[in-house]
Amino acid sequence: MRGEIVSVGTEILLGQIVDANAVDLGLVFAETGVTHHFRQTVGDHHDRLVSALRLALTRADVVVTIGGLGPTEDDITRTAIAEAIGQRLVTDPENEDRLREIFERRNIPWTEAQVRQAQRPEQAEVIPNPNGTAPGLICPVGEQVVIALPGPRNEFGPMIRGRVRDFLAQRSGEEPIVSRVLRIVGLGESQVEAKLLDLMHSSDPTVAPYAKIGEVHLRLTTRQSHVEGLAQFEAEIRDRLGSHVYGVGDESLEEVTIDEMAQRGLTLAVAESCTGGGLGERLTRVAGVSTVFQGGFLTYQDSVKTKLLGVPSEILATEGAVSEACARAMAVGARERLAGTHALSITGVAGEEPMHENGIEKPSGLVFIGLATPDRVVALRFQFAGNRDTIRARAVQNALALLRKDVLGL
Amino acid sequence: MRGEIVSVGTEILLGQIVDANAVDLGLVFAETGVTHHFRQTVGDHHDRLVSALRLALTRADVVVTIGGLGPTEDDITRTAIAEAIGQRLVTDPENEDRLREIFERRNIPWTEAQVRQAQRPEQAEVIPNPNGTAPGLICPVGEQVVIALPGPRNEFGPMIRGRVRDFLAQRSGEEPIVSRVLRIVGLGESQVEAKLLDLMHSSDPTVAPYAKIGEVHLRLTTRQSHVEGLAQFEAEIRDRLGSHVYGVGDESLEEVTIDEMAQRGLTLAVAESCTGGGLGERLTRVAGVSTVFQGGFLTYQDSVKTKLLGVPSEILATEGAVSEACARAMAVGARERLAGTHALSITGVAGEEPMHENGIEKPSGLVFIGLATPDRVVALRFQFAGNRDTIRARAVQNALALLRKDVLGL
Repeated sequence: MRGEIVSVGTEILLGQIVDANAVDLGLVFAETGVTHHFRQTVGDHHDRLVSALRLALTRADVVVTIGGLGPTEDDITRTAIAEAIGQRLVTDPENEDRLREIFERRNIPWTEAQVRQAQRPEQAEVIPNPNGTAPGLICPVGEQVVIALPGPRNEFGPMIRGRVRDFLAQRSGEEPIVSRVLRIVGLGESQVEAKLLDLMHSSDPTVAPYAKIGEVHLRLTTRQSHVEGLAQFEAEIRDRLGSHVYGVGDESLEEVTIDEMAQRGLTLAVAESCTGGGLGERLTRVAGVSTVFQGGFLTYQDSVKTKLLGVPSEILATEGAVSEACARAMAVGARERLAGTHALSITGVAGEEPMHENGIEKPSGLVFIGLATPDRVVALRFQFAGNRDTIRARAVQNALALLRKDVLGL
Repeated sequence: MRGEIVSVGTEILLGQIVDANAVDLGLVFAETGVTHHFRQTVGDHHDRLVSALRLALTRADVVVTIGGLGPTEDDITRTAIAEAIGQRLVTDPENEDRLREIFERRNIPWTEAQVRQAQRPEQAEVIPNPNGTAPGLICPVGEQVVIALPGPRNEFGPMIRGRVRDFLAQRSGEEPIVSRVLRIVGLGESQVEAKLLDLMHSSDPTVAPYAKIGEVHLRLTTRQSHVEGLAQFEAEIRDRLGSHVYGVGDESLEEVTIDEMAQRGLTLAVAESCTGGGLGERLTRVAGVSTVFQGGFLTYQDSVKTKLLGVPSEILATEGAVSEACARAMAVGARERLAGTHALSITGVAGEEPMHENGIEKPSGLVFIGLATPDRVVALRFQFAGNRDTIRARAVQNALALLRKDVLGL
């Protein structure tokens, strides 16, 4: 079965946004055995979209549009699909009721433009959108099908991982490609490759590394019928990388670490300076984290470090806030105040200019991460490269990695 | 002049890499006045690339290919262009000499496959590649032109910022496009559109809305010589949307709010429950925020709300943590403890299941945002839709919007 993506949006053509949805859908095509030869990207223009859809229907069994389903004049996808496939647009009453309800609940006045989002080509099936107003559409056209998906990431994602993936897998009837992602912390991409050098050339299963911030993902891929080979291959890789493999698939470092802590009855407090809440934010992405994560302290200004955490002012006046001593004192202060088992602290220079504290130059990217536990207090020094965002992300990632090592006794 | 990008690479279709080159080239098109209606992405397949090129040549003056210029079998772009434009491929002797030199210098044995990289359609001009082996090509085809650029980022980048940009700017002879983004908070996309209904159809300047989480971006676009018209158009829009327009271009809501606070000598503390640090994280994305942002409290567990912020346990035992009273007490507690002027608090149900507190059901997405200032204490109730991430992002966004309104006296 052949698939083709038609991405809709002038802002994509103009280089204002990256078409991340098309990337995700490309992966889903691969995983569901849909062959994929062409992608088109079209601006917000009715006639051009109609011509792109007609072209796609000459060469693909399934055409998936992304974007242009909103309520505004720019949102032309529904009308263009109806024209390209020669079906009338009808208003779906169930959909309209749902939309009116959402607007009422959000206290937003209903405007007639909103009705557009309740429309569908007459033979189309609606894909529910729990995260937004515009539903997706599955529109049969003889033996072919056009699927329309909304552009916002949080609406698009659940649809392709749910209804759309199932639909494609079933419809393609081809042997699905199976892949498995191993998530690795504490080794860089080249270190991972060096340990797997002979396996990197394997043609089935294949293995491909992807460098992420502070971790590496290894994608292992084969066809459904060779899935036992995949398990063996994974075992060999795990054997070589040992406890650096922290998770599989979508599992995040915070998730597995919190899970290990929960199993051991441990609790966690945080004390953040340069990350300003980024560590807490990441920990609380995990649903149900409240059995482990107590809370913590954002001590951005130096005086607040003393006031909330009892960091001795002598430390701030000598070694400064970006120091091993301060990271230790922050971790100890947070642990004592919340009376739990573990506390993590982060203090550093996230800005792109060096900082001066008491005559000592602290370069951009210098970060100290502290950990206080019932057994010990440690602080590690890191020198990260990158801009403000990257430095902060690396700091959070390394704090989680330090915590995981401690909890697992590595 | 019309331009069209043809990106070449199976790895792009399969979702293994993001097509960042096409994003950059889209920006260069816009800046050099090249109109841009379609983009095609094709796998590494000769016949399909030829057909994509032929299609592009039916509707564009300049067709730019990205990728497929390397030495391997997969690198099909040169041959496909030659076929599509009906020119012979010839080996460029100067190019071959240069390649042989590079290989000698790098101590890599010369293979005949490398000669491919020295080939060009007979009428083509070569674009030097200081960072790699495959040069770019400018291939005239009557009044049209096909430009071929290499895929590696460090080879592609210098070419489009140098020779290619100059070529496009000169050839288009058109004026550069100027655009300006207005950032709007406190109105939904359809509300913005309703207020601008007559302007939405304007053909010069054009205006296009983009819905973001808790804000709307309006992109106004015109040609360089009409730039005064753009200013007038912007003034009209600002007049209708009033103080809902909070910023321009890349300015973020946190940035403008912090800036207004700094000018007034105000300070800010935060107290976060369901966002777990997301508000602090966002505030501290702003470099130099430490004059305004003091720090704050992550009070994820209920007992920590009492311990760190003095939230009365009666409130937790009656109305519960997700309540107006709790949001008010959190904001007051944070403000008192850090002794600044302003404090924001967030408490809510970010999880996708409803929560029960003391027999009261709190639905997913119910969030209270509190603000304490020298003059008042308020708490607002919100009911957000979406998943955990979206609910948390909306909570942070609305906390910032509330703060901005207070600071500006709106």
